[in-house]
Amino acid sequence: MAETVEETETEKEAISIVGAGPVGALLALMLAKKGYQIDLFESRPDSRKTNIYQGKSINFALSERGWLALETLGIANEIREQAIPMYCRVMHDLEGNLTKQAYGKDNQAIWSVSRSGINEQLISYAEKSELINIHFSHRLTQLNFNDNTAVYLDSNNQVVTHQSDLVFGADGAFSKVRRLMQELPKQRISYSLDYMPQSYIELSIAANDDGSHKLEKNALHIWPRKDFMLIALPNLDGSFTCTLFMDQTGDISFDALKEHSSVNAFFNQYFPDAVSLLENPVEAFLAKAASPLCLVHIYPWLVNDQVALIGDSAHAMVPFYGQGMNCGFEDCRILSDLVDTTQGKWPLVLQEYQRSRKPNCDAITELAQRNFVEMSDLAGNANFLLRKKIEAKFHQQHPSLWVPLYSMVTFSPNIPYSKALAVGDIQNEIMDQIMQTPDIENIWQDDAIYSAMYELALTKLG
Amino acid sequence: MAETVEETETEKEAISIVGAGPVGALLALMLAKKGYQIDLFESRPDSRKTNIYQGKSINFALSERGWLALETLGIANEIREQAIPMYCRVMHDLEGNLTKQAYGKDNQAIWSVSRSGINEQLISYAEKSELINIHFSHRLTQLNFNDNTAVYLDSNNQVVTHQSDLVFGADGAFSKVRRLMQELPKQRISYSLDYMPQSYIELSIAANDDGSHKLEKNALHIWPRKDFMLIALPNLDGSFTCTLFMDQTGDISFDALKEHSSVNAFFNQYFPDAVSLLENPVEAFLAKAASPLCLVHIYPWLVNDQVALIGDSAHAMVPFYGQGMNCGFEDCRILSDLVDTTQGKWPLVLQEYQRSRKPNCDAITELAQRNFVEMSDLAGNANFLLRKKIEAKFHQQHPSLWVPLYSMVTFSPNIPYSKALAVGDIQNEIMDQIMQTPDIENIWQDDAIYSAMYELALTKLG
Repeated sequence: MAETVEETETEKEAISIVGAGPVGALLALMLAKKGYQIDLFESRPDSRKTNIYQGKSINFALSERGWLALETLGIANEIREQAIPMYCRVMHDLEGNLTKQAYGKDNQAIWSVSRSGINEQLISYAEKSELINIHFSHRLTQLNFNDNTAVYLDSNNQVVTHQSDLVFGADGAFSKVRRLMQELPKQRISYSLDYMPQSYIELSIAANDDGSHKLEKNALHIWPRKDFMLIALPNLDGSFTCTLFMDQTGDISFDALKEHSSVNAFFNQYFPDAVSLLENPVEAFLAKAASPLCLVHIYPWLVNDQVALIGDSAHAMVPFYGQGMNCGFEDCRILSDLVDTTQGKWPLVLQEYQRSRKPNCDAITELAQRNFVEMSDLAGNANFLLRKKIEAKFHQQHPSLWVPLYSMVTFSPNIPYSKALAVGDIQNEIMDQIMQTPDIENIWQDDAIYSAMYELALTKLG
Repeated sequence: MAETVEETETEKEAISIVGAGPVGALLALMLAKKGYQIDLFESRPDSRKTNIYQGKSINFALSERGWLALETLGIANEIREQAIPMYCRVMHDLEGNLTKQAYGKDNQAIWSVSRSGINEQLISYAEKSELINIHFSHRLTQLNFNDNTAVYLDSNNQVVTHQSDLVFGADGAFSKVRRLMQELPKQRISYSLDYMPQSYIELSIAANDDGSHKLEKNALHIWPRKDFMLIALPNLDGSFTCTLFMDQTGDISFDALKEHSSVNAFFNQYFPDAVSLLENPVEAFLAKAASPLCLVHIYPWLVNDQVALIGDSAHAMVPFYGQGMNCGFEDCRILSDLVDTTQGKWPLVLQEYQRSRKPNCDAITELAQRNFVEMSDLAGNANFLLRKKIEAKFHQQHPSLWVPLYSMVTFSPNIPYSKALAVGDIQNEIMDQIMQTPDIENIWQDDAIYSAMYELALTKLG
């Protein structure tokens, strides 16, 4: 008689995720796919049933890292149907002249998606999973970091208590999970919150009557004015979502521009070709309080190897590289991969997640901050554009030796951000040297330039 | 009949100072000297009547900036009577061999004072002033930043409300005033709290039976062991206050050393000449929780031009340059000077105080952080000591062209810290170059070395 061997599968950990934004929802889907039971808590009501996003259509630029994460769930194609590829930047100068700059080669694009759209798509997928319970209108108020008991207030202000094995704080730049972590004694949590000098307001350009776009559809439009800039991203309905970034204080600033006449003069002087397209820009400008831009750094991201921060709560960045959501999605993908490679050993998953993600998230936060100058000033600079052309030509000749920084960040699905930053700094040194070549404006296509670059690149990057 | 001209002197602002540590007490004295009515609030009881400092004798190294502030009050000489000059560092190597390094030239010294001693001296002066009301055991709980109404809890947990025209937060690295500021919406306050990898515990060396010191009295003793170090500062009673700085985690760390045997072995291996002098170092080590070291940056320091941070609350730094209190005293002196130069126009005083102090406090915070390496590693390094000797010799030849960084920070009463940092970085470049000279160990006294240094210094610093 054969012996009966009882196979007891170890029970999988119960997981709470605080925050059902794009990162929280994606994380829920990824972990549910691995068989974990997920409780997903969101302080706001279900946006599909309310108007909380009405009149506020933030856009994201989804790029390869984001797509890779969506592909692991098999939902990339459906999301892509709601996205608009932007193949180039179109720069608008003070006279309304346009300059195009391709983001990559061939058909490489970044994809304009609406925040609410992608969030609602992910929530709808989550709803279909038997392993995911979504709790809308549940606002976290307390968290016991010893046993992971969380206290929420629901929409009736009733106290709801929920205990789980693991808790993820995917609750954004002003994370409550993070604030509760910081109140713990003896955790030695280093933290910084840095405000940028710039703030922003959103404006819009409506569609034409026939639903077509008033500006080139498949582009990200920039009006670079050095200390400030206007950008526009296309929406499916023919409209553009525009953002004006400008200093909060100073000569030309949100604080300085308070009168109808001065705001009107400002738009006419700096955005002459946009002013007639924008929907009541002066009224919109005067009616809105500018929103701040801030960066958050925190370390560690973990408490007791049971509570972890992810996405903006761990590393809020400025929007100038279009990588905030992509980086958060990559957090989820890396974490999900670690569940496989460690066979679900959670302390190990979380420690390795923190160890590998922290330097990369620091790097993209740094790159995003630097990119304001590239977008607002250099994008309109002839010397800079020449530099980009030389880089692109060299990249075509030596596609693996030289991948432009922007491409490493945006079109690679997985080059670590920290490597992109380091390589980008070396490329910059090389380009500084090349741009010193006398008469470079006229001889930039000469073979000698590219031989010199090849020598430098081999030595410094090879 | 002569006309009567009524002279109405503008009434002076009523000022609250939160925190009666050395900086708060000094600020109270300085502002009272200018005729302001001061309410000085301290959360703890009067240390002169209780035992709160018993067994905890932190020492400060008072240097020129501190003395200048005390001199403006005419109390420097009395404080000096309670201070011990330390003319040099004495480095103790692994074999117990001693190396001396003078801090400056001639009779330049830093002065060892006890925290509680100088604090109590300042409090006693403040008590004698008719313009200063000291409120011990008053813990700040709320502050209305519109009308400067503060709420305190006294020792009986009774609510005390106090309104004033100006409020200073001199309440230290974990400032309550600062935390209340940070909770304000719309203030865009950038903030960082950074924990160093090192923590510390205090140990002590008792006096000889005759009250004399067991180590050279007029020196700061260092046992530099690269990743960790022990230091000792003399007290008037013949004892030394010692501090062991070491990583919190890692191979040799507070977390790793938990057993009597391993701690005993650690002291015997690394501090053989100190182990017999220290009072029960193993027991003391095991009994104490190591304290963290952290840095605080915040900006702005002001709210509504009525509430201001000063001292550690605005810029907590690590203790490795011995400048924390000196910098706080300099904050007070600069602020006090501004009251004179602006004739008491407070918004101007505070704005200018913030504008001028912020970059200087950032600079000394940076220098203090860097100095851990100098104290714990370089201080025991032959190459570094040679470098210092060359610098000192050159300084003697060209006393105004070249003032060593340490002297600019410590022995100048007023060179801005930010200037010291910038000049120090250039000096470092020059010394890097000089130290490349072949056979420098043997020819360092040659005239050619100093001619070369002179050329470099003239070009880069002249």
